[in-house]
Amino acid sequence: MKKANTSMDSESRVREEHHDSLRLWLRLLTCTNLVENELRNYLRDEFASTLPRFDFIAQLERHPQGLRMGELSRLMMVSGGNVTGIATQLEKEGLIKREASEGDRRSFIVRLTTKGRRRFNRMAEDHESWVIDMFSGMDVSEIDTLHKLLGKLKAELVQFKTREQGKI
Amino acid sequence: MKKANTSMDSESRVREEHHDSLRLWLRLLTCTNLVENELRNYLRDEFASTLPRFDFIAQLERHPQGLRMGELSRLMMVSGGNVTGIATQLEKEGLIKREASEGDRRSFIVRLTTKGRRRFNRMAEDHESWVIDMFSGMDVSEIDTLHKLLGKLKAELVQFKTREQGKI
Repeated sequence: MKKANTSMDSESRVREEHHDSLRLWLRLLTCTNLVENELRNYLRDEFASTLPRFDFIAQLERHPQGLRMGELSRLMMVSGGNVTGIATQLEKEGLIKREASEGDRRSFIVRLTTKGRRRFNRMAEDHESWVIDMFSGMDVSEIDTLHKLLGKLKAELVQFKTREQGKI
Repeated sequence: MKKANTSMDSESRVREEHHDSLRLWLRLLTCTNLVENELRNYLRDEFASTLPRFDFIAQLERHPQGLRMGELSRLMMVSGGNVTGIATQLEKEGLIKREASEGDRRSFIVRLTTKGRRRFNRMAEDHESWVIDMFSGMDVSEIDTLHKLLGKLKAELVQFKTREQGKI
């Protein structure tokens, strides 16, 4: 009886007969999960925060004119309920403010406060240095090749998604 | 005022001054999210199922000798509470069975039932064909290069994680 492989690894599902695309996908997923887990630990230990909270604040920093909750939900690829939960917390901590939208009184525009912007700047600086550390084993040309090939993959995936949506 | 970019895209956070590693990470994350979202939609539409349920069944198929709940939790990189919730559902549907472990009567060994194995085979076949479709815009050499470079990245990330754990 073979001992169970219990490492954190989506590739543990790969078998000899699997198609190259599936192998690539499971490796892509494994890399993403490894990075995300480290970032999650850092955010928890250094800022008592989470990835969705960091993403929420980062999206607002990128859009100083403010965002509607629906836009935030789409940008973060999470459900409206989750976004509302995060917004309530961040507002309580004084990092964001919600204001009724001028055009549509039923919808809110969310913006960073000055305190929120300062917090974001500290988090973003550390976040970038963690990522640089994690990728430091790759040389410049490897990073460049990966960036280009994943750029092509991304374009193909966006096209694929558009075609699928057209079928509905 | 610039219109908010509300496409589903972690790269919407990238700025000119960002380090190449951070750009690569956000692109990697975007690709993973795009594939995961499509797979999530397919599993919901075709099997009324979810990615964690599929992963749970896939891990058991890979380990016919059965797995302890703690092993499943580590393999799937999710908390024990989530794994227990999925196990309860899948057991109700007759796809898995839980048995008390011989060595340790407090822990359960989880195995697929025959019905669970049949369900997995159908799901896995469709899952593979969805992934092949999604990656079909990439040619063989591009897939091969990505697989090799991500293999190096994965090895670096695993080493990084080991070093970080050693610091605790």
